[in-house]
Amino acid sequence: MAGVDQPGFKGRTSHMETELSYKRKPSTVSEMQQKKFSHLERKAYKRKIREEKLLAEMRKQKAIRKEKEEKEKAEKEQKELKERCGRPYTVAIAVPGSILDNAQSLELRAYLAGQVARAAAVFNIDEIVVFDENYNAKQDASEFSGLRRSDRGNTQLFHILQYLECPQYLRKAFFPYHKDLVHAGLLNPLDTPHHLRETDASEYREGVTLDKPVKSGKGAYANVGLKKDVILNMAVPPGQRVTVKLTEQTTEKKNLRGEVVSPSEPRETAGLYWGYTVRLAGSLSHVFKSSPHPGGYDLTIGTSERGQDVSSVDLPRFNHAIIVFGGLKGLEASVEADDATQTDDPSEIFQHYVNVCPKQGSRTIRTEEALLIAMSSLSPKIKWAHAGQTS
Amino acid sequence: MAGVDQPGFKGRTSHMETELSYKRKPSTVSEMQQKKFSHLERKAYKRKIREEKLLAEMRKQKAIRKEKEEKEKAEKEQKELKERCGRPYTVAIAVPGSILDNAQSLELRAYLAGQVARAAAVFNIDEIVVFDENYNAKQDASEFSGLRRSDRGNTQLFHILQYLECPQYLRKAFFPYHKDLVHAGLLNPLDTPHHLRETDASEYREGVTLDKPVKSGKGAYANVGLKKDVILNMAVPPGQRVTVKLTEQTTEKKNLRGEVVSPSEPRETAGLYWGYTVRLAGSLSHVFKSSPHPGGYDLTIGTSERGQDVSSVDLPRFNHAIIVFGGLKGLEASVEADDATQTDDPSEIFQHYVNVCPKQGSRTIRTEEALLIAMSSLSPKIKWAHAGQTS
Repeated sequence: MAGVDQPGFKGRTSHMETELSYKRKPSTVSEMQQKKFSHLERKAYKRKIREEKLLAEMRKQKAIRKEKEEKEKAEKEQKELKERCGRPYTVAIAVPGSILDNAQSLELRAYLAGQVARAAAVFNIDEIVVFDENYNAKQDASEFSGLRRSDRGNTQLFHILQYLECPQYLRKAFFPYHKDLVHAGLLNPLDTPHHLRETDASEYREGVTLDKPVKSGKGAYANVGLKKDVILNMAVPPGQRVTVKLTEQTTEKKNLRGEVVSPSEPRETAGLYWGYTVRLAGSLSHVFKSSPHPGGYDLTIGTSERGQDVSSVDLPRFNHAIIVFGGLKGLEASVEADDATQTDDPSEIFQHYVNVCPKQGSRTIRTEEALLIAMSSLSPKIKWAHAGQTS
Repeated sequence: MAGVDQPGFKGRTSHMETELSYKRKPSTVSEMQQKKFSHLERKAYKRKIREEKLLAEMRKQKAIRKEKEEKEKAEKEQKELKERCGRPYTVAIAVPGSILDNAQSLELRAYLAGQVARAAAVFNIDEIVVFDENYNAKQDASEFSGLRRSDRGNTQLFHILQYLECPQYLRKAFFPYHKDLVHAGLLNPLDTPHHLRETDASEYREGVTLDKPVKSGKGAYANVGLKKDVILNMAVPPGQRVTVKLTEQTTEKKNLRGEVVSPSEPRETAGLYWGYTVRLAGSLSHVFKSSPHPGGYDLTIGTSERGQDVSSVDLPRFNHAIIVFGGLKGLEASVEADDATQTDDPSEIFQHYVNVCPKQGSRTIRTEEALLIAMSSLSPKIKWAHAGQTS
């Protein structure tokens, strides 16, 4: 603007600019241009400037307040969305590994483990506990934390469950050849949301960190089952399984970028079923004692044909539920075998002891059948208990 | 008695006995003994006899009436018991035989058929319909009653289901060697109430009629899985499967005795689950058209993840229900393949089209899993619909 170029005024303006730390309106400058500056006029001008400065500061504060409010509103919306779409609670199941020992062939043994994995996937189970139903504390008193050399059924079930939960593109990295997995190729895939194909679009992906040199302080590379590797936002040693939140779905660059997040984030924020963890428990009591949740399970359900008719059971809202299944001899046998439990009556151990199939037409219900039958009855009750939190 | 032996009196007494057809009280005879019989005395005596005869007749009629009343009361009680304990309705399921063709090995193929049989037994299913989901009426227009040479899956499923339903002690009589049954020994037993051991006590038993000579008009022999054969109340050609109601549980004689009854009697009168029948249907429409019930099925339910949430469905009271399951491609594929159905929308074919597993954690639910999941959700609704009829 022409007026600003006048000699004797440029310096001042720039002085004032520095002093005020804001850009004056060009109109003010134009007014001043047309004046002769007397002492009084200068004084009045200075006052005017002060007033303007005050007004500007007020406007600035208002803008900051507004920005803060908008940010808070967005955060609140985000939180509400999370509460609406996410699932804050977890559901675990516990099964005795001995069920595998009743299978009629090696192929059917593996298939049975596959059935347990499938049932867990269909019903969004977050944790599977494989427990030893024959554990006897007296016989194994010296044992550390209740974990002992389990029989073959427990370890094989544990092994196959982990294998099936792992996305296909990561199996080579985590599951070298093992005799437990010989028939795993025959098993039905879980087809869960975290078992993604290369062409699937997903904000979250499971990955393995790679042994690939990166600049120091520059994170790590991970294979998440896409053509391009992902550069992570933090350094992770190679060979680790990570849950990655992709910050972009496509890129022109050589690599994608992503953040390492908790494996529970897809469930908590988006309500996505993100597979299950597997845990071995040396006895029925260690199913509860060694819970991964700091407060343990706050809802425990045992299943038995001697339990209460499931249709008459209402479940309370909970954070972490566990549903325990017996083996061939029922939960009664597990309770009796476990000397750490102070009773032989399973109904005393669980908050709810339910019969999931009243009037059954067969004398026995197999554990792999009971899983589907029980979860089918309990799922609506679980959803109902959390109604309002989840849609 | 001494008096009866007196000469000249014996004949009369015996005459009177014949005339009156009832045994006089010995006291009367004793009285008569001590008398000289004049003409008047004889007249008075005859009158007395007539009066006694009348009284006796009245007593007899009263006894008959009482007996009749007791019988009616017993029948009424029996009827009430039947209504209380029996199950008047039937539940059928229909599955496509093609599900076997997706199995990964011959052993698992047989195992899958076993899973269908087990699910049926656990949930008291009375009929299993194996249907051809690939049937195309246009391609097979010349076919008689829609039954055509089914693919291998349909016949093998049919075969294994029949084999598993048959009590073990009858299998030798009804199931000669067949390649479809090669792996049947690996399958889990159904353990239903009609699969009885020799030591089990049961009013009803399944049997096979024997080729063993009987006197003409004397019924037939049957093997019902007990040490002794049973003589039936009617002639049945040898080699037939019969449901036998034993009239005695033990006997000193060489054979037990029993009545041939309808296979539905144990269900209808005692509420016992008595196995299932198996039927092949050439297409989805023949599942309904060829119903064994004169009026067809009066409740039809289709299952699909595109159906209505099962928890919001109420079932009406029915006589004969059928629940239809799709194969790998869902019921939609079966409806599309079947030109006899006037629509491609399965929800138009069924009274209820339900999603038995809302929010499933796996992209697909296998048919053998859907059976257990669906029946677990529907069973309480079925019982509820008949509440008051069954306890």
